[in-house]
Amino acid sequence: MNLMLLEKNDFTGPGRVIIFGRRFDHVKNVLQAGIGESLSCGIVNGKMGTGRIMAVHSDSLEMDISLEIEPPEPLPLTLVLALPRPKMLKRIFESVTSLGVKEIYLINSWRVEKSFWQSPVLEARELEKYLRLGLEQSKDTMMPRIHQKRFFTKFVKQELPVIGKDSFCMTAHPKTSNICPMGVNKKTCLVIGPEGGFIDLEIKTLEESGFTTYNIGQRILRVETATTFLISRLFAWG
Amino acid sequence: MNLMLLEKNDFTGPGRVIIFGRRFDHVKNVLQAGIGESLSCGIVNGKMGTGRIMAVHSDSLEMDISLEIEPPEPLPLTLVLALPRPKMLKRIFESVTSLGVKEIYLINSWRVEKSFWQSPVLEARELEKYLRLGLEQSKDTMMPRIHQKRFFTKFVKQELPVIGKDSFCMTAHPKTSNICPMGVNKKTCLVIGPEGGFIDLEIKTLEESGFTTYNIGQRILRVETATTFLISRLFAWG
Repeated sequence: MNLMLLEKNDFTGPGRVIIFGRRFDHVKNVLQAGIGESLSCGIVNGKMGTGRIMAVHSDSLEMDISLEIEPPEPLPLTLVLALPRPKMLKRIFESVTSLGVKEIYLINSWRVEKSFWQSPVLEARELEKYLRLGLEQSKDTMMPRIHQKRFFTKFVKQELPVIGKDSFCMTAHPKTSNICPMGVNKKTCLVIGPEGGFIDLEIKTLEESGFTTYNIGQRILRVETATTFLISRLFAWG
Repeated sequence: MNLMLLEKNDFTGPGRVIIFGRRFDHVKNVLQAGIGESLSCGIVNGKMGTGRIMAVHSDSLEMDISLEIEPPEPLPLTLVLALPRPKMLKRIFESVTSLGVKEIYLINSWRVEKSFWQSPVLEARELEKYLRLGLEQSKDTMMPRIHQKRFFTKFVKQELPVIGKDSFCMTAHPKTSNICPMGVNKKTCLVIGPEGGFIDLEIKTLEESGFTTYNIGQRILRVETATTFLISRLFAWG
């Protein structure tokens, strides 16, 4: 936790918060911070700044909060992911949030196991946990928006062309000779398939919607590795 | 499993193997391949090719093996990692192996928890499991070599300058204004610190051994995300 994420209902008065639970435990046990010390803080979907610890109780702490800094720039990327298995999805939520992704579409595809759509990870309260971890990791406050699309063809034909308008549109796919460019650095819409890849018909549908296939060399990567790999590659950073 | 990794003791005769356990289960349940079908195979630290299924028994299968292809080029990278927590280390072993890394040094550092060094993941038999998963994922046969170094200063002062000779030598570190280059594409030695980062004295020792600090933008990433991110960024691929 490099930044403590605050919510409106943490506030007990103007500029004063009280923190319980996971965040309190982290300050006490990991950061081992006490009265008078300052922590990076930020309010969900708002400004960032510092919190000065004013009181520590047995199960909570109170801080005076001053928030004046804008959160970091979002990445100009829309990520479209064939729904991965729940355990991997949690880690992907955390990692892509830490990388600054703000728009994530989870879509169905032939090789997505139907049971994945029943996972509790897809419930708003649950998935928010992992998004929060990503924001706290990379000192950001702007929550990504997660969209769930159960109908591949309808989504790719009707919605995706609108989502990808004025963007560099690509599907990551091992079976192509186009090599994924580096440092594109413009608005990008990146589609990543399931373990085992998209089937040919899906690739064709994506191509008809303006999504060209690109590979990242001869190595086939797991979805979570490929996702970070591609995001790193597509933007200049720093 | 995009390639089945074979060992000498799988062979029952010249060009014939018998496969039990995890690999058999994968062929039966995931690939659902039967007699006459061919699978990508490779022998540990040797050539790759195909295996044709000749017989399927209740708990095993037999294949005729033909190995004529060289494994993919290794990545010209030596990765030096402050020992991460065991759960993360498993995933890092798998992901960096799938990316083609062949030399990995696990080192101690001020912020590495002592208990991590007692983890069973560090035993040869156990860590090999995760390296194998990485090779099977990315169709490779060449096992990475894992080196464990418990004495930071001794390692960085005496061994690291030799390991990094004729290489681009860098330490990933958020607190620097040097931006990590893209597509360096030469022999590289990359040092990545623990969660919480190296302490100043460690950074100084690394600098004295020729390792300049570079950052990857204002976002602080978890070690496993940073590792894939940096490897993607440093090489041209494709």
